Amino acid sequence: MDPIYLDYSATSPLRREVLEAMLPFMGERFGNPSSLHRWGREARAALEDARARLAEVLGAGPLEVLFTRGGTEADNMAVLGRAHFAPGAPVVCSSIEHKAVLATAKATARLTGSAFHVVGVDSAGVVREEEIYALLDAKPAVVSVMWANNEVGSVQPVARIAERCSEAGVVFHTDAVQAFGKLEVRVDRVPAAMLSLSAHKVGGPKGVGLLYARKGTRFHPLVYGGSQERGLRPGTEDVAGAVGFAVAAEIAVRERETEMARLAVLRDRLEAGLRAAIPDLCVNAAGTERLPTVLNLCIPGVDSGALVPALDLEGIAASGGSACTSGAAEPSHVLTAMGLDAAAAAPSVRFSLGKETTNAQIDRVLAVVPAVVERLRSFAPI
Amino acid sequence: MDPIYLDYSATSPLRREVLEAMLPFMGERFGNPSSLHRWGREARAALEDARARLAEVLGAGPLEVLFTRGGTEADNMAVLGRAHFAPGAPVVCSSIEHKAVLATAKATARLTGSAFHVVGVDSAGVVREEEIYALLDAKPAVVSVMWANNEVGSVQPVARIAERCSEAGVVFHTDAVQAFGKLEVRVDRVPAAMLSLSAHKVGGPKGVGLLYARKGTRFHPLVYGGSQERGLRPGTEDVAGAVGFAVAAEIAVRERETEMARLAVLRDRLEAGLRAAIPDLCVNAAGTERLPTVLNLCIPGVDSGALVPALDLEGIAASGGSACTSGAAEPSHVLTAMGLDAAAAAPSVRFSLGKETTNAQIDRVLAVVPAVVERLRSFAPI
Repeated sequence: MDPIYLDYSATSPLRREVLEAMLPFMGERFGNPSSLHRWGREARAALEDARARLAEVLGAGPLEVLFTRGGTEADNMAVLGRAHFAPGAPVVCSSIEHKAVLATAKATARLTGSAFHVVGVDSAGVVREEEIYALLDAKPAVVSVMWANNEVGSVQPVARIAERCSEAGVVFHTDAVQAFGKLEVRVDRVPAAMLSLSAHKVGGPKGVGLLYARKGTRFHPLVYGGSQERGLRPGTEDVAGAVGFAVAAEIAVRERETEMARLAVLRDRLEAGLRAAIPDLCVNAAGTERLPTVLNLCIPGVDSGALVPALDLEGIAASGGSACTSGAAEPSHVLTAMGLDAAAAAPSVRFSLGKETTNAQIDRVLAVVPAVVERLRSFAPI
Repeated sequence: MDPIYLDYSATSPLRREVLEAMLPFMGERFGNPSSLHRWGREARAALEDARARLAEVLGAGPLEVLFTRGGTEADNMAVLGRAHFAPGAPVVCSSIEHKAVLATAKATARLTGSAFHVVGVDSAGVVREEEIYALLDAKPAVVSVMWANNEVGSVQPVARIAERCSEAGVVFHTDAVQAFGKLEVRVDRVPAAMLSLSAHKVGGPKGVGLLYARKGTRFHPLVYGGSQERGLRPGTEDVAGAVGFAVAAEIAVRERETEMARLAVLRDRLEAGLRAAIPDLCVNAAGTERLPTVLNLCIPGVDSGALVPALDLEGIAASGGSACTSGAAEPSHVLTAMGLDAAAAAPSVRFSLGKETTNAQIDRVLAVVPAVVERLRSFAPI
């Protein structure tokens, strides 16, 4: 039986079309984009073409797209880079941000002495936006709220928050790493000032991301050196990675509506089937709009530290929260922010669906998970 | 006529063996190393195997090797990351460092308020080491001197400086990006506390580097988020890139002596031939040990801004200084630090040799360059 990968929110396979687009730049077209000779010019042209294509899918201008070495770095540039530019101004983020924002906001306070405000969420995992608006008079260096949450999939009211921040003259940043390719993510529709993406979440290569920064949005670099990316992210550019990212993003956007409709059906079937088989399970963020690819559950009496390995033995890859913190023993900061206590948050598991997820795989998961849960419960302390 | 690439110091082609080693991780083995299931464990194992192999070629322990997103980032972590750890302590570097160190030292002074000292070089491009030793009593946060210079190839007395810093209890960092694969670079022979490498300079992929940090050498991260690389460089790891880097580094070290002997002969022939044809040219860093792959020349009356494109038209790729700053109009900071005035530094050109450089290519360069120089001189203002 082929193993079943249901951890697309952690990372996704590189698409064949992406690899094919990258290979020439891992072969003959290996130049350094900063070189002035033919190899360099060819690499420069490919890099700028990739930038223009990414800008196009976002509804941005090419000068507004900066390549980064991943989503984490883009988030750091938006939060810490903005704080360095506006010293003393507070930083505002939600309590369910990825650690790339949350840990950076904390570090920013330590490094720059500025205050930081963590705005809570409701029990469905949606940020209390009024609390953000009450902070706008303090002229934050940046307000950062993710477009959709990586653990439970709850979609945030980024359009409204972006609008209000824009009216107040405050820079709004959104980590759209999980939303991109699943929701419509366009900066000509949502007036965010900054936005982070990661390539490997949408069939692109690891180690590649981008930071969108709307014209006029200024921030300091976190790394210093040459003049690459207008000095905002020095270092020889990963040309193959940038080209691969552009191709992956174009495909993700082109296929989005069809693919998300397909996956929503599969996810809903998985959810309904598990609810029927395990009546006391609870679906996190069920009370709000969620990404169509994510199902995050708490199964009372079954710790995710036991469930994820047990499913792995059955050939099913799931996650107990986000991959970035899945080694950690603490309960998810997202679930505790949603009001679950540590005991309730511990037995959480995330299934996340993607390109190669099939109906037959969902059948198999529906057959296996209830039996595994029953077995684990029979061993659990009362 | 096939074009001739003589800009290996800017970047080098990805080796076939490296690409082959990377491809599985751009295919079936796409997992996130932080995931706990089989895909994750497989990716984790590959990442840690790559780390162990890189540690082995450096004479380091695997826990002392951190993956970075390139050489520039590794330099930044050593300089700015150390300064954040030791606030108030000065930063010391040489005047011919890559901008990844020099610009970072300047930014560090601005961000942390600490002093920074730039130690000069002699006319051959070798740092005045006594001036460094005189600064050790001030207990710098870090002393950073590159192993070999990227523009002129001058080799620095890093073994002695590392020894003296070690005795004084001062952290010594060396940017070994250009030296690695050309000289013996081992931290069990040279007691450097920190060392930076870049994969793409030795036949590996772009966007991948490492920071060696000797056990007990502490510094702060520059990017915050998950717990990857022990929290010192968060973000989903580029597994394919790490694997490729390990293979490239092993090959570079295995072939080093044979290949450097071969290239030194070619470089010396190029140098002697050009000297004979252009009697007034001067070879930069001629008075000291240089990398066997680099030839940096000043040709009076011929601006590199004209020479590099003219050579490109003849199918020869060379550089006017380092690629990272080659778009800049200013004269090289390395050559001016060596005492050349701006007028003398302007007409500099760097040829850098590598794996695919052949005797026949050198013949062709020797036939073309003097003619191009003569033509350019005939157009130059008197």
